[in-house]
Amino acid sequence: MPQKVRIALDAMGGDFGPSVVIPGAAISLGRHPDVEFLLYGDAKLIEKELAAHPALRKASRVVHTDVAVAMHDKPSVALRRGRYKSSMWQAIDAVKKTEADVTVSAGNTGALMAMARFCLRTLPGIDRPAIAATWPTMRGDSVVLDLGASIGGDAQHLKALAIMGAAMASVLFDLERPTVGLLNIGVEEIKGGEEIREAAELLRAMNSQRFDFIGFVEGDGIGKGAADVIVSEGFAGNIALKAAEGTARQLAEYLRAAMSRTWRSKIGYLFARDAFKALKDKMDPNKSNGGVFLGLNGIVVKSHGGTNAEGFAYAVDVGYDMVRYDLLTKINQTLNRDAGALVATPSAQEVVS
Amino acid sequence: MPQKVRIALDAMGGDFGPSVVIPGAAISLGRHPDVEFLLYGDAKLIEKELAAHPALRKASRVVHTDVAVAMHDKPSVALRRGRYKSSMWQAIDAVKKTEADVTVSAGNTGALMAMARFCLRTLPGIDRPAIAATWPTMRGDSVVLDLGASIGGDAQHLKALAIMGAAMASVLFDLERPTVGLLNIGVEEIKGGEEIREAAELLRAMNSQRFDFIGFVEGDGIGKGAADVIVSEGFAGNIALKAAEGTARQLAEYLRAAMSRTWRSKIGYLFARDAFKALKDKMDPNKSNGGVFLGLNGIVVKSHGGTNAEGFAYAVDVGYDMVRYDLLTKINQTLNRDAGALVATPSAQEVVS
Repeated sequence: MPQKVRIALDAMGGDFGPSVVIPGAAISLGRHPDVEFLLYGDAKLIEKELAAHPALRKASRVVHTDVAVAMHDKPSVALRRGRYKSSMWQAIDAVKKTEADVTVSAGNTGALMAMARFCLRTLPGIDRPAIAATWPTMRGDSVVLDLGASIGGDAQHLKALAIMGAAMASVLFDLERPTVGLLNIGVEEIKGGEEIREAAELLRAMNSQRFDFIGFVEGDGIGKGAADVIVSEGFAGNIALKAAEGTARQLAEYLRAAMSRTWRSKIGYLFARDAFKALKDKMDPNKSNGGVFLGLNGIVVKSHGGTNAEGFAYAVDVGYDMVRYDLLTKINQTLNRDAGALVATPSAQEVVS
Repeated sequence: MPQKVRIALDAMGGDFGPSVVIPGAAISLGRHPDVEFLLYGDAKLIEKELAAHPALRKASRVVHTDVAVAMHDKPSVALRRGRYKSSMWQAIDAVKKTEADVTVSAGNTGALMAMARFCLRTLPGIDRPAIAATWPTMRGDSVVLDLGASIGGDAQHLKALAIMGAAMASVLFDLERPTVGLLNIGVEEIKGGEEIREAAELLRAMNSQRFDFIGFVEGDGIGKGAADVIVSEGFAGNIALKAAEGTARQLAEYLRAAMSRTWRSKIGYLFARDAFKALKDKMDPNKSNGGVFLGLNGIVVKSHGGTNAEGFAYAVDVGYDMVRYDLLTKINQTLNRDAGALVATPSAQEVVS
């Protein structure tokens, strides 16, 4: 029996706080009995929720905090008000103090990223952390990053994203050598900004044993599953994710409207109910919940703020997988062993020397 | 009876050349009898197709050309081989010589843009042309631009896009004062790159009578119809479009698979056939065919290269609307009358002085 996975939860995070976080943790515990939880937040509220989940209560330690970061606090405000004292900070700090292996929070993204960066610091060789998530495609899931942790970035940044995304894909999907594509507006060599073309050259020159760089992928290639890992700077990555989510919601709404339009379509719906249920499951945004902050000395998973217990449980599952399959070690190995991987940045010198 | 709309067609453009362009033109002529066509390309091939469309033949003049731009020619190659001589060039040149009011081509985007720019030149005050198209949303259509004519751009560029997109939306959707949003990765003032925040300030300060700037729109806001016009530089705009298209195809495929999975779902499909047909019509990519090149001294409409006759007809329809409702005049009016609209660029000085 391997060591337990220790997960620190920001119980006050998200639109609903402990009333979603605690039941969500209970669901995930049911799937992974080898987990211990550290629950940070208002002890009274947490205990109230735990009363309904005795197994979780047994697997948890509650740490009371007085301060909760609000969903609309600016990062600077959150840091000023919440550093050291807030449930969010303490959950992250538990990873820094090696009391926990991973932090999961449904709190506001900007504040969580600012605190994670401040508390955990970036890995040697990494200038800026990224947010990565899984994206359901026609060929199974892909990892897409950066989904908005930072805007822009040079070829070295894109290369770092590729290395980290590949490590995450190999951990999550159990792949020896995942394929990696660079998001671009055309697949020809002449397309895209200079930094993207330069990143393509760097990745090709790397000829890594840990991933297979396949070149450029267009926006519609993501859903086709053109690569196991899709790399983009954070602005376009975020736009791609949101545009796809918006389209999925739009089509689901069209479908709903179409099926309730006539008595014939209503009867059709009744007959095909199971098919629609399967389709709904497939499109369930809960199952893609859990953005992983990559590039820090520790793993932080961000859940959607508006998620329900089922969705939060998926985010906890993602955190579990990252720890159980040792994401951080894999990222560091690639950063270290693919000699010269990121030598252009000063801090990377320390890593590869 | 107003003057006829004169449309120049690059009959050799697209994956199928005259065999799609000519039947497509015939369909559009059926909807708009007040059109005259100039057909550029291999006269033999064109005449062969025209034989099946006597009404179109009567409304057309064929101009033979020997050179056709290939779908995979680089812009530089296309210009070298095809300037003056190709069907694409001559169709554009017809607009320059005021023999036609608009050009429609299904030829390759890069070559078409390069030739259009070279032949027609940009409008005073406009540095770089843009590609705009309509995007079906839950509140009707929106205009989205730039879809990939150029990458990046400063606040002035985004402002110019807003002005041109608003003119197109008012023409296409018959709106007095369309709403305009800037595509961004958050709706808060602190989000996005500097050029986007600066563009927001410029647009707010403009306080234009011709459009209503509503601030930032996220990727999932496009499909919600958050604004009549969505403005982005070309990289993110292209990624958003392709990601949405990819998701739509993916979900259509899921739906198809779900409905053919069991005998119950197959029966359901039969009952709801009309509903599915309506849904398919609603999602028909043909109906969004027709990217409009904005910012040139003349209007050029780009059809998808792989479209069918029905899809090409929609692109011709878009060209027709742009002319009939006088897009170019409206753009120029906004550029001229919204005093100081683009004063920061030298060429704009001429316009506003």
